[in-house]
Amino acid sequence: MLKPGISDVQGQVVERSLPALGWENVSGVRVGKHLEFEIEGSSVESIREQVEQMCERFLANTVIEGFRVDIDA
Amino acid sequence: MLKPGISDVQGQVVERSLPALGWENVSGVRVGKHLEFEIEGSSVESIREQVEQMCERFLANTVIEGFRVDIDA
Repeated sequence: MLKPGISDVQGQVVERSLPALGWENVSGVRVGKHLEFEIEGSSVESIREQVEQMCERFLANTVIEGFRVDIDA
Repeated sequence: MLKPGISDVQGQVVERSLPALGWENVSGVRVGKHLEFEIEGSSVESIREQVEQMCERFLANTVIEGFRVDIDA
């Protein structure tokens, strides 16, 4: 997801399209990426640490993007 | 998120890149879109129904994509 303050053009396009479809009560649309995968590891803590490294070094552009890690153990 | 059985090329590219970066324990990578927004309504039920309609009619291509709705009330 783009960080707060970074203009989200894709979200703006979605938001401007909604009233014409009858939905006038939606604001603040932000569009980001969602990744799911399986990962093997010995503990939730070590897996979380690895996934955060994967996001910081490869999956996210941390200059403009934030990320959140959810783990289903 | 693409439905199971629909080939996810973007996810495959990510998955094939991971071992070269030292992460060999990741499989089944799937890449989808994530949208966040504020929405005004009188009940969680009516909001969920509206968002499901928005996904089915506009935000998702339900031929190939599934979707999940999470509400922070």
